[in-house]
Amino acid sequence: MPARSDACLAALAAAFPPAALLQGADIPARNLQDTSYLPTEAPLAVLRPDTPEGVAEVMRICAAHGVAVVPQGGLTGLAGGAHPIAGAVMLSLERLAGIEEIDPAAATMTVRAGTPLEVIQRAADDAGFFVALDLGARGSCQIGGNLGTNAGGNRVIRYGMAREMVLGLEYVLPDGTLVTSLNKMIKNNAGYDLKQLFIGSEGTLGVITRAVLRMQPKPGCVNAALCGMDSYGDVVALLGQARRGLGPMLSAFEVMWADYWHEATVTVGVRSPLGGAHPFYVLIEAQGLSEDIDGPRFQSWIESQFEAGLIADAAISQSMADVGAFWATRDACSEFGSRLGPHVAFDVGLPVAVMDDFAQACKARLADRVPDAFSVYYGHIGDGNLHLIALSKGAQVQPMTQISAAVYETVRDFGGTVSAEHGIGLLKKPYLGYTRTPQELALMRRLKAAIDPQGILNPGKVFDMEEGA
Amino acid sequence: MPARSDACLAALAAAFPPAALLQGADIPARNLQDTSYLPTEAPLAVLRPDTPEGVAEVMRICAAHGVAVVPQGGLTGLAGGAHPIAGAVMLSLERLAGIEEIDPAAATMTVRAGTPLEVIQRAADDAGFFVALDLGARGSCQIGGNLGTNAGGNRVIRYGMAREMVLGLEYVLPDGTLVTSLNKMIKNNAGYDLKQLFIGSEGTLGVITRAVLRMQPKPGCVNAALCGMDSYGDVVALLGQARRGLGPMLSAFEVMWADYWHEATVTVGVRSPLGGAHPFYVLIEAQGLSEDIDGPRFQSWIESQFEAGLIADAAISQSMADVGAFWATRDACSEFGSRLGPHVAFDVGLPVAVMDDFAQACKARLADRVPDAFSVYYGHIGDGNLHLIALSKGAQVQPMTQISAAVYETVRDFGGTVSAEHGIGLLKKPYLGYTRTPQELALMRRLKAAIDPQGILNPGKVFDMEEGA
Repeated sequence: MPARSDACLAALAAAFPPAALLQGADIPARNLQDTSYLPTEAPLAVLRPDTPEGVAEVMRICAAHGVAVVPQGGLTGLAGGAHPIAGAVMLSLERLAGIEEIDPAAATMTVRAGTPLEVIQRAADDAGFFVALDLGARGSCQIGGNLGTNAGGNRVIRYGMAREMVLGLEYVLPDGTLVTSLNKMIKNNAGYDLKQLFIGSEGTLGVITRAVLRMQPKPGCVNAALCGMDSYGDVVALLGQARRGLGPMLSAFEVMWADYWHEATVTVGVRSPLGGAHPFYVLIEAQGLSEDIDGPRFQSWIESQFEAGLIADAAISQSMADVGAFWATRDACSEFGSRLGPHVAFDVGLPVAVMDDFAQACKARLADRVPDAFSVYYGHIGDGNLHLIALSKGAQVQPMTQISAAVYETVRDFGGTVSAEHGIGLLKKPYLGYTRTPQELALMRRLKAAIDPQGILNPGKVFDMEEGA
Repeated sequence: MPARSDACLAALAAAFPPAALLQGADIPARNLQDTSYLPTEAPLAVLRPDTPEGVAEVMRICAAHGVAVVPQGGLTGLAGGAHPIAGAVMLSLERLAGIEEIDPAAATMTVRAGTPLEVIQRAADDAGFFVALDLGARGSCQIGGNLGTNAGGNRVIRYGMAREMVLGLEYVLPDGTLVTSLNKMIKNNAGYDLKQLFIGSEGTLGVITRAVLRMQPKPGCVNAALCGMDSYGDVVALLGQARRGLGPMLSAFEVMWADYWHEATVTVGVRSPLGGAHPFYVLIEAQGLSEDIDGPRFQSWIESQFEAGLIADAAISQSMADVGAFWATRDACSEFGSRLGPHVAFDVGLPVAVMDDFAQACKARLADRVPDAFSVYYGHIGDGNLHLIALSKGAQVQPMTQISAAVYETVRDFGGTVSAEHGIGLLKKPYLGYTRTPQELALMRRLKAAIDPQGILNPGKVFDMEEGA
């Protein structure tokens, strides 16, 4: 262990009680890996301060000793943004948890970074409100990580990304400065909107300690339909009709390609709510104000699309159980890991109009490059977000690099993004240049150098400081 | 004229045709002043490139000669952000105008920075969509300025600020680098969201050249009510009820204090839709999907609030003419300049719960400090945005500094913002520290220094680089 690490550890041990400083065998396995499942590396220590000032103190001590710091939330990230770095201090926010205030007049909630998303959702619900951010990892992910990665989820089409839910933010800069800006107002044009820099930068510019979140009114009712569609052109036309006909009530517009549908209903075995087979399936959800008015309105809107010939077949929810059953076809992808075996999962974004062209081009390129290539497509297409999984059938070890290159090169060809919602972290770093120009990358590096001149906060994540590295 | 200015002008003249370079008496008066009405200063020249590359070339030449550049949009800003700087090049975007593309599938529009907002609104309308950004200066303001200042407006409660409407952005950095990032996807988490830095930084970090805007579906119907309210507590309670009962259809929640109401209906003479007098008046607007369903729903919701005793009196719109008549009471403030004489107008933000306490404290402090002080209060309170005007009755010259200090000190006491939507520019620069902490100001300066190390882009706007300047 280099001398500066020894001195840093000694300074941290002098400043923090044992509960806040874990080393060696005392470090729980859960602090050593995120959901990228990259090979574990041994950190210097795990620090778990329970106040914003404590987070600032960790950062200040590490900065003084030139020791790298990796912020840790719930470690549910898929791209490796919170993956441990050998010899670095892991700064876990897990003990900086809890809800500080709920302001019903402003419809805001002030939370500590280590609070699990589900705790926040429940607290809002208890207060008669709704926090729109939702994702599969809700029970274990933490709000600090959700904001640090600008999490998305199923209802972005209506409520926006995590970024749109933040009114105020507190964070610690790489030099240990605590910046507190817990604004509650929707409008605040007093100087630069600094919080935007720290949302979605994957812990490379600052460590989020607290946030003021917007709360929404609870929806009064939820209706859904599962539609069989004859062509991708009909899917795009239906999205346009849904935007008009359902307006701000449209809360999800999910598309599943036929190959996905087969895996979901046959391989995974989710019951299909529809009789026949179609090239495309659309799950539409609308959150209304009251079932007596919005239920019949949703039903008659779906019927009008059927009568106009846009929808080939449809099942309309008659109960929340139906809504759940429809979503089960879309959530079947969470079983793909166990049913389809090792595969590579992608979270790309594309302009809505070209998504099917992309899917066809991607399949063709995979067939060219990968033996026995297999891929299925599905996603939140109303938001321009397409998920896909790809694999080489029967391969013991998946050719990850070939598969990734084939997919991301096709994304580049169609003007898409290599990450719509999961972030870049470590896994997608080689492909960031497929979506961002050299000018953008240079500006990212310039900002990183300005805010973290020592390069000690989550170094090597998202991009490397050396061009072409 | 210093030598570097001569050399800069010569280089500009060599690079641009006469239509793009105006000097001396050829400069139209409109390019010499924005709507802050600060005393005019003589620029070196006005440059009017008509391509993004031309904007980059102006910036590159000025950077090479160390000559300051002030970006100019429609010059409708009230805070002085685009006020000319003596000896600087005024970089007008007026010839970089027009709509480049409308993508109905993505519901996006790609526009050039110099396009007037009203042209954009009409183009969206022609394409069957709706651009939610709207403000009084729509006919002359330009989208580049709207984005550079993160414009607000009347329907932020439903659609958000200008920032929320931007998917992609192109801008020129102070060294002349053109950064093109015309993303159309709602979700794009590939590295830092750089555009956020250039939205709302009032032309101090870059010059916006093009943008991709989100379009919304057109509302199917609009309903409104004008309500007389007995107390501010009732106003806050009604806002909570409106969020729940009208959900995402709620498109405006405007409050007018009794003093404002008197000036609007007596001094300006707008007809009151209500019979009696009340301490507070609320204008509620909801944008629905179809009049047959949402008209009766709105009416019955208002009636239920009346029956519950929350609303003391109400007029409900029966036609778009009624909606217009209700808005006339709120728009009467545009006549205050001519009816009340010289006054100081404020655009502050406060947590919703404390707005009336603020108004009372502000009146008291003004009464203490300003002879024959008079002030009236109104605003978009659902967004935390309060407007007020204040003056010393009968004073030939208004004591601007005393009035401003009294108001902004009260804003500081209540944890508010000195600018909710108009920006800081020059006029509010002395008060930025009332809303932002020293740590935030230091970070703003650090970003400015990193992106504009020469300090040549709109220098001295928003904040000074020297602490305490």
